[in-house]
Amino acid sequence: MVKTAVIGAGILGLATALRLQRAGHDVAVFDPAPVSGASYAAAGMLAPVAEVQFGQDSLLPIMQKALDEYPEFLELLGVPHDAVGYETAGTLLVAADPGDREYLERMERAYEARGLAFEHLPGSRLTRLEPALAPGLSAGAEIPSDLRIDPRRFTNAMLEALGPEALVRQRVTRLDGAAVETADGVLHSFDTTVVAAGMGIADIAGLPEDAALSLRPVYGDVIRVRVPESRLRFGPLLTRTVRAVVTGRSVYVVPRASGEIVIGASVREDRPDTDLGSVADLLADAITVVPGLRDCDLIDVTTRARPTTEDDMPVVTRTQVSGTSAVVVAGGLSRHGILLTPYISRLAAQAADTHPEGRIP
Amino acid sequence: MVKTAVIGAGILGLATALRLQRAGHDVAVFDPAPVSGASYAAAGMLAPVAEVQFGQDSLLPIMQKALDEYPEFLELLGVPHDAVGYETAGTLLVAADPGDREYLERMERAYEARGLAFEHLPGSRLTRLEPALAPGLSAGAEIPSDLRIDPRRFTNAMLEALGPEALVRQRVTRLDGAAVETADGVLHSFDTTVVAAGMGIADIAGLPEDAALSLRPVYGDVIRVRVPESRLRFGPLLTRTVRAVVTGRSVYVVPRASGEIVIGASVREDRPDTDLGSVADLLADAITVVPGLRDCDLIDVTTRARPTTEDDMPVVTRTQVSGTSAVVVAGGLSRHGILLTPYISRLAAQAADTHPEGRIP
Repeated sequence: MVKTAVIGAGILGLATALRLQRAGHDVAVFDPAPVSGASYAAAGMLAPVAEVQFGQDSLLPIMQKALDEYPEFLELLGVPHDAVGYETAGTLLVAADPGDREYLERMERAYEARGLAFEHLPGSRLTRLEPALAPGLSAGAEIPSDLRIDPRRFTNAMLEALGPEALVRQRVTRLDGAAVETADGVLHSFDTTVVAAGMGIADIAGLPEDAALSLRPVYGDVIRVRVPESRLRFGPLLTRTVRAVVTGRSVYVVPRASGEIVIGASVREDRPDTDLGSVADLLADAITVVPGLRDCDLIDVTTRARPTTEDDMPVVTRTQVSGTSAVVVAGGLSRHGILLTPYISRLAAQAADTHPEGRIP
Repeated sequence: MVKTAVIGAGILGLATALRLQRAGHDVAVFDPAPVSGASYAAAGMLAPVAEVQFGQDSLLPIMQKALDEYPEFLELLGVPHDAVGYETAGTLLVAADPGDREYLERMERAYEARGLAFEHLPGSRLTRLEPALAPGLSAGAEIPSDLRIDPRRFTNAMLEALGPEALVRQRVTRLDGAAVETADGVLHSFDTTVVAAGMGIADIAGLPEDAALSLRPVYGDVIRVRVPESRLRFGPLLTRTVRAVVTGRSVYVVPRASGEIVIGASVREDRPDTDLGSVADLLADAITVVPGLRDCDLIDVTTRARPTTEDDMPVVTRTQVSGTSAVVVAGGLSRHGILLTPYISRLAAQAADTHPEGRIP
């Protein structure tokens, strides 16, 4: 049996490990604190269209491909869609005040130019679609193709599918070819090693030179709230994901069938701590668009780094270290980590699976 | 040696236990989770004057007496003032916009009527006293006599002074006279028992009828932030406690020498969970008054119940249960728990210390 190490139990590491395990590898995943990084905080929007704004055009086809691969990956994982909060209610893009319409129109022109499906909605139509939206919003657009998932339930399902014996709660300090040295000084030998350690890659010595991956942290704050039981009895507060521009600032409000709602996401490169100004703005803007959030309960506020490459494009590289032994490096999924995982984990697993005994379809 | 049980390791239970231990009692404090209630969240304002507004007039002399007893209690505890964040920089009362001046003037008239010291300040003077205040605030008043303390460091110092052997991490389920039954079914015998369990009193069976104490929870949300090191190098963001009224809403901003700043405090009786609307308002109002808070780091948001009696007055009762055995009930400190503790713990300890072997001065 091919012995494969995966360094990093974030969403990408887990998905890659799962694919390799299903292809017949003997997989060990190394992480002292599984799923404590970017995917712990992520809202889980699977939104190639709504994300076009920020994106380089070269990312769009990758994001759409990743979205298309989701159902197949969930089947591989072997969980029903609702167990991981995979929902298809779509996204409402909202311009809060008349000044924000310019932004909305720019987005709509971008959709038209790329042939992406959307429907323009006058402000009066918005509250008919989502009664919890504030009255008097300026205008909006419905994007039916954008989906969402619950990253914490998704990653927990992957951990469970892998099995407890696949997880090694140790920090990897060094690679020696495809062998892995842990913080306790033990050297574990493997045929192939996949490095999907996010920002943690900087702390791993001995990476082959041509596997170097320099990532910068792009921080974001995420606020998690719960709709009170008393309100939930009358149905969900929102059904669609709401992405709004409020006097020029962006905020998203992602509802889940469980009654949880996730509010995000600020973007900054300078401060790893939870920025009080960002949190205040996110709350104020979210409440402007969905006033009923005022009566929700705060669960937590988390801040994490999105590991990002210089050109914001994801990376998968394979380096032969001796014979059939190789080191595969995957990462740099940046703002699109949850969306891109099924696709990029497939590329990473394929790169790792050149050993004759196993093969990824 | 007199054996005394104290049920509850909140600030009042710990202070009462400490006094009794110093008076020669063999004290055991029962609490499955010490200092996890109201005192864990409290900001620690020792502010009889600024609190006059909310207070019944009958509370004012009690609050002032409690403030006067603080230095003596800290001496008994045996810690230097700065080790528990006991600071004397005073309070600035601030009216944010012209409409808020009415509130300020009402407060100032109340101070005058009661002979309390304060100095009225025009808006232009405020930023000279505290440069971090927003320009253009309407008016203010400086209250030099209001102090503050850090409740978490204060209660930790008490836990340490009591010694680890004095703490029993067990929930008390029942009293049998002055004896105490814990959740593990063990009955511990004592000469006297002090019940200072806050809202937890409702879960203790067997209380003597004339020791009944019905408390209602008054909830509040508290936001804790940290001034970044880079800013702290140029000195503290604030030196005085700032209590502001912003378009009719109250907010306080309590700085500590450590660089921590505490923002509070909403008041409600209906919801134990952290109210998102309250948190959004507290943040927005605090930032309106102290814009530099935007660049601070969020540490945590806590919500706790202030145990409150029907008439908002604290209670100390003693019930003889047999011979010299007694049950003392103390509590209901409501919004003034940290301030009132030295005084009310003295009354509670005196009530418990009628045994000939010990005596509280």
